[in-house]
Amino acid sequence: MTVDVSYDARTGAAVEEVAVSTPFEVDTALAAAAAAAPGVAATPPVERARLLRALADALEGRADELVALADRETGLGEERLRMEIGRAAGQLRYHADVAVEGSYLDVTIDTGAPRLARTGVPLGPVAVFGASNFPFLFGVLGTDTAAALAAGCPVVVKANPAQPVLSARLRLLAADVLPAGWFALVSGFEAGGALVASPHTAAVAFTGSQRGGLALWRLANERDVVIPVFAEMGTVNPVVVTAAALSRADELARGFVESFTRGTGQYCTKPGLLFVPAGSGMAGRVAAALVDLAPEAWLLTEQIAASAATGLAELVAAGGTVAGQAPGPGNGWTTPTTVLSAPIEKLRSGSRLLEECFGPVAIVTEYADRAELEHALGELQGTLAAAVMAGEDDQDVPWLVERLTALAGRVTVGDWPTGVAVTGAQHHGGPWPATTRPATTSVGAGALSRFTRPVAYQNVPDAALPPPLRAGNPWRLPRRVDGVVTLP
Amino acid sequence: MTVDVSYDARTGAAVEEVAVSTPFEVDTALAAAAAAAPGVAATPPVERARLLRALADALEGRADELVALADRETGLGEERLRMEIGRAAGQLRYHADVAVEGSYLDVTIDTGAPRLARTGVPLGPVAVFGASNFPFLFGVLGTDTAAALAAGCPVVVKANPAQPVLSARLRLLAADVLPAGWFALVSGFEAGGALVASPHTAAVAFTGSQRGGLALWRLANERDVVIPVFAEMGTVNPVVVTAAALSRADELARGFVESFTRGTGQYCTKPGLLFVPAGSGMAGRVAAALVDLAPEAWLLTEQIAASAATGLAELVAAGGTVAGQAPGPGNGWTTPTTVLSAPIEKLRSGSRLLEECFGPVAIVTEYADRAELEHALGELQGTLAAAVMAGEDDQDVPWLVERLTALAGRVTVGDWPTGVAVTGAQHHGGPWPATTRPATTSVGAGALSRFTRPVAYQNVPDAALPPPLRAGNPWRLPRRVDGVVTLP
Repeated sequence: MTVDVSYDARTGAAVEEVAVSTPFEVDTALAAAAAAAPGVAATPPVERARLLRALADALEGRADELVALADRETGLGEERLRMEIGRAAGQLRYHADVAVEGSYLDVTIDTGAPRLARTGVPLGPVAVFGASNFPFLFGVLGTDTAAALAAGCPVVVKANPAQPVLSARLRLLAADVLPAGWFALVSGFEAGGALVASPHTAAVAFTGSQRGGLALWRLANERDVVIPVFAEMGTVNPVVVTAAALSRADELARGFVESFTRGTGQYCTKPGLLFVPAGSGMAGRVAAALVDLAPEAWLLTEQIAASAATGLAELVAAGGTVAGQAPGPGNGWTTPTTVLSAPIEKLRSGSRLLEECFGPVAIVTEYADRAELEHALGELQGTLAAAVMAGEDDQDVPWLVERLTALAGRVTVGDWPTGVAVTGAQHHGGPWPATTRPATTSVGAGALSRFTRPVAYQNVPDAALPPPLRAGNPWRLPRRVDGVVTLP
Repeated sequence: MTVDVSYDARTGAAVEEVAVSTPFEVDTALAAAAAAAPGVAATPPVERARLLRALADALEGRADELVALADRETGLGEERLRMEIGRAAGQLRYHADVAVEGSYLDVTIDTGAPRLARTGVPLGPVAVFGASNFPFLFGVLGTDTAAALAAGCPVVVKANPAQPVLSARLRLLAADVLPAGWFALVSGFEAGGALVASPHTAAVAFTGSQRGGLALWRLANERDVVIPVFAEMGTVNPVVVTAAALSRADELARGFVESFTRGTGQYCTKPGLLFVPAGSGMAGRVAAALVDLAPEAWLLTEQIAASAATGLAELVAAGGTVAGQAPGPGNGWTTPTTVLSAPIEKLRSGSRLLEECFGPVAIVTEYADRAELEHALGELQGTLAAAVMAGEDDQDVPWLVERLTALAGRVTVGDWPTGVAVTGAQHHGGPWPATTRPATTSVGAGALSRFTRPVAYQNVPDAALPPPLRAGNPWRLPRRVDGVVTLP
């Protein structure tokens, strides 16, 4: 395949072709990134930040054009995409601020004998595999690209084949702003493998399916010099409704539908499994809410639409029963919005019911008592997020939060898991297989340190130290000196 | 094999047999650790610290007996082992202090909407594979055990087969101090595999050879739920002598011999490769120093002695020439202390000359100019430490430090790499294959966070939050609140 085809998600029509990268082009991009890496690393954070802010300005300045391209390729709708582009610009500025603030380097100096001083050093070129479901926030100029650049690493992005035209346009936008070697975009399936295998590549960041992420992780593990793969993958994100929450059962049913159908169910934080007290009739309430609320919406690609249909059939085969359904649009890539009910005893480790079904599909299951609920929670896989919907002063909240902590990277009470705020305390990660590196986050301030590696300098003279460790603190970083945090 | 045999390293005589763990015993130990894990995690840091300090006291209180056992099994000598036991006790107290201080949890609270609060949570049972070369600092109660307990994780240690009697004695000592389930020791080759494969195990910490560490890493990667393996492995630790340093060539030659023969060359930080200016005659000086300084010393095991002999032969086959040699003792497990010279053009990626030879063996190589040196440094593998021996205001130091940063986890100027201080700024790690997780350290304050995973709590009521995040800050931790570090 020498072209990526750009489709209109709403009609399924092929509207444009974009040539994929040749092996020579991929090699050239990687060599340029490797050559640029020392210079990118040595660029002071204030200058990296200036470039990231310029990228943010460029995104916003071209919003009309970018939203139109993205809407055609994704079918996600102008309103959502315009909001997303604003958040993506905000994220670029946020990572700029995090880079300048500098805590992510964890600079530590012990002045005793031996004198030891440690800082994070940038890893080098990062291969970024963006997601199709957030073309701006997790795409070509999304969180991984922003975090890697902020941390002082050049980036080579593998274009998502679902958005070849948008990706190419974002590449031009980046090329206008960034110095040579800081950024490249390559495309085509072979290019992805070449990026992971290249000795120039120092780390891989991926957002997408478990199958895709684990394939890259396996490939990286076969290298002579194994490199980290930060793969953030789709999960089930269970939500538990307590007995005390049932006083607002209809509100919860509507909230559940709104959450699991957001972005046509194509969120990695979609609540895919709702635990409700037995006899609450919640599956019926959710089915009723579907009729009102299910949006007319498209899936991102033909393959995702096909997988959603297959997934739904697999869920039924595994013991689920369709409780309610709203038809998709009659054209383009679509699937019915569906809520299933499943008996809790079918939720056993290894069951298809406990794996993500990407798209507007969710499951409701009833628990008779705490013991049954606890048992079922013990069967779940690691997940990005988990939520509790509770009543006032609900005595079930503490034990549920503790139980869900073992499963998830983020636990929410009262909030649906869908939204992921870009802040310092955010953790968008979670136990295997939610990510290949459960100790890391792809969103928020913590996203930068993934692309650095600590190095300790022992009795190294000041002039030979990297800037973060020099006596004059030229980058004005917070530093822990003999155990005490000192601000610049 | 149902027993581990305890040998006298100085005579090679089998002196005692210790039965290895049965599969039932291994399962029982893991189940007990898993059952204890929530309680260990919930134990306040001050109480964890009290237990670690009690372990330190017990080590020192039993020093005479422990040193005698260790000396027989290791041949490392009473003086060294007595010093090591003191440092191991200090390390336990250090990790106790780090746990109480609490920065390692990186507690971060954002009070906006949504309210997000993040802390590290303990991973659960940690399988520790200690090293034979530091029976106290990296052994049964060494840095990995201390760090895991300090971080709130139960530990199951796989006894190093080189020290079955010492390991069993240390197990008793730990059992006297620690509550049930916090600590177990298992032994036997099969037990090691069972630890890594068990669903109860949450992480693996290993110190030892590349072969051993990578075998565990591969095993962990085959699990359904892949877990992190923190393997710290032996490396070459190159040292560069600059032209300006040659005014003290004889002092450097003696220092090199003292450093590479320390612990009979069985340090993971042994300087295995010395780059010297062409025509400096350094190989001859080192050979001369050997005659004076090479200690009468034993290797840890029969297998290590055999590997050292094989390694020496391999180095010669790869292009090395023996420049000087001092015979080992006439009895027990021993190998000649040897310095080789090798032409720098033989130092090519993949050559045996660039791999560790565990034992009192090191290589000297001459570089004609900076270009030749830079080229050779580019061929090296990732390494734990690297050093520069320089003159006053030496203009070669800055570029060498920058170049070695790309290779190493720690760069020293003027100090031999052998010593590893236990401090906040320490980084005992390094690029692949120095460790399987180059972003982590097995020594110093950074060792604890390996055994935690961040979890973010969104709008969770105070009573349901873990102690580090509660409004009252009951564990008295430093916390970053809305971007500002606040002390308790």
